[in-house]
Amino acid sequence: MEDRLNDAEMELWHLWKQAAEAIRARVADDVSAATGLSDPDFGVLTRVAELGHGLLRQNELASSMGWHRSRLSHHLTRMEQRALVTRRPTEGGVEVLITDQGRAAVAKARPLHAAAVRRHLLDQVPRESLSALRDVLARLASRSRATPFD
Amino acid sequence: MEDRLNDAEMELWHLWKQAAEAIRARVADDVSAATGLSDPDFGVLTRVAELGHGLLRQNELASSMGWHRSRLSHHLTRMEQRALVTRRPTEGGVEVLITDQGRAAVAKARPLHAAAVRRHLLDQVPRESLSALRDVLARLASRSRATPFD
Repeated sequence: MEDRLNDAEMELWHLWKQAAEAIRARVADDVSAATGLSDPDFGVLTRVAELGHGLLRQNELASSMGWHRSRLSHHLTRMEQRALVTRRPTEGGVEVLITDQGRAAVAKARPLHAAAVRRHLLDQVPRESLSALRDVLARLASRSRATPFD
Repeated sequence: MEDRLNDAEMELWHLWKQAAEAIRARVADDVSAATGLSDPDFGVLTRVAELGHGLLRQNELASSMGWHRSRLSHHLTRMEQRALVTRRPTEGGVEVLITDQGRAAVAKARPLHAAAVRRHLLDQVPRESLSALRDVLARLASRSRATPFD
């Protein structure tokens, strides 16, 4: 076992990192440019709207996003200031509610997000490679902590 | 064209995001647990040590990491406090120099990083799928802004 990655190993590692960052940034930029929603904004709104049908406990939202409680709390404060969500105390915790403005934003963002995922990821993979890529990703993603939703 | 991703499209998108985040976190956690270096620390030290042979201009470092100047500057302040790098003014900018302690840290981290990349990414991909994965990633990574180095 060599101490350093060889050229072929290093190339694959760098391509992996570049692709991961490029896809993330391109999808987020497309949605943000058209709606003003950041990637975390979109993640919060889709979870509250669709996973929670409009209302989700804050700790369940944190768990689904794979975020620490304090990070989510700071982010929700900023989203409240923009009237996208509201919060209210509930037995043993806090509930997050989507506002009408939040619903309108996510309704606008959903098709843009789907188009961006297709344009930047799905349409870039040759049809005959999709199944093999799915299998590799499933293996790599196993034991992951976050539950993706958006 | 549907407004929403269908189940197969959504599955691939979620697996992609989970895999990207899981690999990033696992490699970073392995290196950090053994050396105390965060992923950005390791990125800075390897670039200054190897790309710059011990000395790199701060704006070149920012460009190679794909970071904004101010984010890098804050990070370098914290690394200076830990005696991993020093900075000095130079004509039209700032030079970043690696310290002996920084060199020792990167020398310890390099083989751990290589082992982590193998364990969490390279060894998880079936040998017969490596070439197809490389081609897909190269296509996805094209037009990427950052220059990966570490």
